Amino acid sequence: MMKEYEQNELNKVKRGPKRATYNVTKINEILDAGFIGYVNFIYQNQAICLPMAYGRNGNKIYLHSSLKNRMLLSILDSKSVSMTVTHLDALILARSGFHHSVNYRSATLFGNAKKIEDSIEKEMALKCLVDHMIPKRWEEIRPMNEKEFNGTLVIEMTIESASAKIRNVGVQDEKSDESLPIWAGIVPIKQIAEYPISDKGLPKKMDIPEHVIDYYNKNR
Amino acid sequence: MMKEYEQNELNKVKRGPKRATYNVTKINEILDAGFIGYVNFIYQNQAICLPMAYGRNGNKIYLHSSLKNRMLLSILDSKSVSMTVTHLDALILARSGFHHSVNYRSATLFGNAKKIEDSIEKEMALKCLVDHMIPKRWEEIRPMNEKEFNGTLVIEMTIESASAKIRNVGVQDEKSDESLPIWAGIVPIKQIAEYPISDKGLPKKMDIPEHVIDYYNKNR
Repeated sequence: MMKEYEQNELNKVKRGPKRATYNVTKINEILDAGFIGYVNFIYQNQAICLPMAYGRNGNKIYLHSSLKNRMLLSILDSKSVSMTVTHLDALILARSGFHHSVNYRSATLFGNAKKIEDSIEKEMALKCLVDHMIPKRWEEIRPMNEKEFNGTLVIEMTIESASAKIRNVGVQDEKSDESLPIWAGIVPIKQIAEYPISDKGLPKKMDIPEHVIDYYNKNR
Repeated sequence: MMKEYEQNELNKVKRGPKRATYNVTKINEILDAGFIGYVNFIYQNQAICLPMAYGRNGNKIYLHSSLKNRMLLSILDSKSVSMTVTHLDALILARSGFHHSVNYRSATLFGNAKKIEDSIEKEMALKCLVDHMIPKRWEEIRPMNEKEFNGTLVIEMTIESASAKIRNVGVQDEKSDESLPIWAGIVPIKQIAEYPISDKGLPKKMDIPEHVIDYYNKNR
């Protein structure tokens, strides 16, 4: 398996190259720590991005939508796609405005996109999407019916190149500022889950299942 | 003041129009609830987006970077820019995969972009950027020096049109699925701040200032 994405004109990090990584494992870790990515398309000569759920299997990213989604249709048309996934980890409050920053992990992927036509592949991709949001969910839910299955467009993106930027250090002030009587420090930022709330339509005695409690415990 | 953005080809929400809003106040609330937006540009015919800090003052959005940032330079070149800001509020775990969803607030802005040349405007924009990240920070820090000031590119985006999508309801399953013995519900998701950590370079007796504690208390 490839260990690093090759650097090319598209994925090469120009600003802050010290914080850049092309390492496949590190980039996959960023992708697996979330499930919402910003997917790009061009509409009327304007680049636009919208948040979308994704799933990952190896170097494949799955996206889905209704059959008429203009973003995914435009991506299929251009055959190429890019997606960015970012996690915010801290505010960096320096002694100068210039050194204010954030800690973050951000990956940008470039690849080709095709519609999944094969039914078995399509079902696997949909399972991947649901389980990427919350592990082990797919096996608990009502299987898709034909209308739902046929009404869903699933796109497979093959990652061709990618890069990430990671900042995970503290305040980096000018040496000459460090003795100023100005407080500096970091405020850690985290995305958390709160306790699950059962749908009111549920039979009253149904407990919150283990996979949902597990998710809560790992993200609380 | 304008109450709603006019709908045009760029900002009109095509999918899920019931969740769409063009209300200026609601869109500003989404913008003010965060400070990282996904800014789009086109590079080698590929739409790309990268996360950036922003500040807002009325219908102006401020972005900044080093003078050589290819994204902002490309935006200045094309004179137009779009930016998306999203907050994830909950996982919606339905009884079918088809109705799995998330609660979210997402705003997409379209506007023109120009470099701020005037020094007073530029300083106001930089103050806005820092204080948008954490209120009242600007007045506590060391003023910018000339080298920092001249080395920073500040862009003013004037919002010309915008739209938002908001989902803030519970599970919406098929009626026929509601009696199935499958758990459904929501998992609330939140971005929180953890307790601030003072930089180790600080004089030992310096307390965490009020504006930082306030931020923590509002976001913990």
